[in-house]
Amino acid sequence: MSARRTPREPAGEKALIAAIRRRTAGRTRSVRLGIGDDCAILRPAPGSEVVVTTDFSLEQVHFRRDWHPAESAGHRCLARGLSDLAAMGADPMAAFLSIAVPAELTVAERGSSWLDRFLNGILALASRHKVPLAGGDTAQSPLFDEVGSRQTGMVSADIVLVGSVAQGRALLRSSAKAGDILYVTGALGGAEAELLALGRNPEAFSKLKKSAPEHPHLYPEPRLAVGRRLLAQRTATAAIDISDGLSTDLAHLCEESGIAVQVDAAAIPVHPLAQKAEKDGWIPSALHFALHGGEDYELLFTASSRTKVPARIAGVPVRSIGRMKARRKGKPLMEMIRPNGKAVPLHAGGWEHFG
Amino acid sequence: MSARRTPREPAGEKALIAAIRRRTAGRTRSVRLGIGDDCAILRPAPGSEVVVTTDFSLEQVHFRRDWHPAESAGHRCLARGLSDLAAMGADPMAAFLSIAVPAELTVAERGSSWLDRFLNGILALASRHKVPLAGGDTAQSPLFDEVGSRQTGMVSADIVLVGSVAQGRALLRSSAKAGDILYVTGALGGAEAELLALGRNPEAFSKLKKSAPEHPHLYPEPRLAVGRRLLAQRTATAAIDISDGLSTDLAHLCEESGIAVQVDAAAIPVHPLAQKAEKDGWIPSALHFALHGGEDYELLFTASSRTKVPARIAGVPVRSIGRMKARRKGKPLMEMIRPNGKAVPLHAGGWEHFG
Repeated sequence: MSARRTPREPAGEKALIAAIRRRTAGRTRSVRLGIGDDCAILRPAPGSEVVVTTDFSLEQVHFRRDWHPAESAGHRCLARGLSDLAAMGADPMAAFLSIAVPAELTVAERGSSWLDRFLNGILALASRHKVPLAGGDTAQSPLFDEVGSRQTGMVSADIVLVGSVAQGRALLRSSAKAGDILYVTGALGGAEAELLALGRNPEAFSKLKKSAPEHPHLYPEPRLAVGRRLLAQRTATAAIDISDGLSTDLAHLCEESGIAVQVDAAAIPVHPLAQKAEKDGWIPSALHFALHGGEDYELLFTASSRTKVPARIAGVPVRSIGRMKARRKGKPLMEMIRPNGKAVPLHAGGWEHFG
Repeated sequence: MSARRTPREPAGEKALIAAIRRRTAGRTRSVRLGIGDDCAILRPAPGSEVVVTTDFSLEQVHFRRDWHPAESAGHRCLARGLSDLAAMGADPMAAFLSIAVPAELTVAERGSSWLDRFLNGILALASRHKVPLAGGDTAQSPLFDEVGSRQTGMVSADIVLVGSVAQGRALLRSSAKAGDILYVTGALGGAEAELLALGRNPEAFSKLKKSAPEHPHLYPEPRLAVGRRLLAQRTATAAIDISDGLSTDLAHLCEESGIAVQVDAAAIPVHPLAQKAEKDGWIPSALHFALHGGEDYELLFTASSRTKVPARIAGVPVRSIGRMKARRKGKPLMEMIRPNGKAVPLHAGGWEHFG
């Protein structure tokens, strides 16, 4: 955490540091010392373990400055990390943001700069989940082409989330058992559907600063309360968040647990935005988006067949969508029962970056 | 920590993830769970606090691919974070690396790719200090100019270090007292002098893979053992690492502690490489490099005038170079007694990025 503040430093970097430092947390319950020293000091509760996750948010890879409102880019940056904590059942202790931005994005336009708006997006979500921003690093982005006409750089942000969880209790990907029932929170495919709409008409979304449940791509809701409840009530045997699409993350869960799965397609909760995209003829199949669409940030978890899992947890709908099975040689890792009753292999189908 | 491994993913990203995953730590004393789940799980010792620092290493800002051997870029990336831990007196628990590289840097040339060599640099230093690499994130760098002739991207790496320190015992910047003596480890100005030599003839350094004390810029040695000793023996009242130059980091120490300082220029240990650069007529003053040169990664600390501070700590020379004073209105924050006995104000003089 070395934030250069020297006289020979470019103005953009100073503005950047000042903007972030102004808005970082001081002392909180879990943060004994925030920005301003060589390291931040966190105080985990006695008997807890510390969980750590880092996630890059790169312009042109994870967001596009010409598509995503700056607030959304910030929100999504933090949401990725929070969703990882949710999948462990962890309590957030602190977030750290390393960010490089081109100098021009620190210059205010009509009151606030791109960077201010990006931080607004992070801090609004952080405040809702009571996560202090406790430090990080800043730099000015290098120019990407010094001879070309577009003399600008790209935004790269790395978000680090540190959380705590009671010793030995974290929800893992590797502990699902054959016979367990597979559950998912919320509805799937909405993020991919909204991304499609965004790409078709970015202008329509350019003023969208507010988080709302109907914006699953621009303002996804990390399921922290659900994760905590699953852990506290000892409901889940294993959990993972759906960042790369149901099929891809389910494959991870199966691989890490060394088991197979049978998914019931008819039971998968398909997001209304995906249904609408199908109805409007934008996509041939809403189910395809629900199975393979990225960045829904819902939780996928398993529970023993003897466990009674409520229909809503922490206010979020929960649906059983399949059953874990022993892995058999020559049989697919994942099988899906189609709505017509036919069993087909389910392959991990990823989500494409913007690049 | 979402490492995309989907069929539609670019080959470079898969290679990147595979290369890193192969080389990350499994379970260690402090790491209960490394890469492969939503988060890593760390287990701090009972009664300890957790310290966290993040540092960006950006191509063209913190290193140049045409100047720095890949091993040096990796070493320097980790050294920055470890030096922050050293300044707190902390024990490293784990490192996390988020890295974006252009696809071509994951392709092997004569046995190893740029990325392999970068990781070699990180892991050699990590192994010497017993720091497990416990996770991170990867992405393919966006191209910086899709129409230009140079169809390539830039490397950006964010290193996160998590350490532990006995509760309430971390060495801070803010706890120096008027009357304390100011000390510095090692010698200063060497990193800036080697950088000058590197810029004049990068070819001469291009094969340099090994860390050695005579390469203060390419392979700086974070002073972890010194920091731990300062904490364990209750020697230091405050500490900071010198990343931005003695004058800049000393100003931070004074500001955070709310006091002033008088530095004795004749006592400052000037690195032999800086002395040589002056002797060879490359620079007018070796002392200037020692005062303002960046990235020496030595420790600057204060101790009570009643504390007997040994001439070497953990094998590293330690010199007293000044005395902390009460801050007086109208007087400079920092004053320096020149070798000729004249007192002059000392200003924080920074270090320029490569950009």
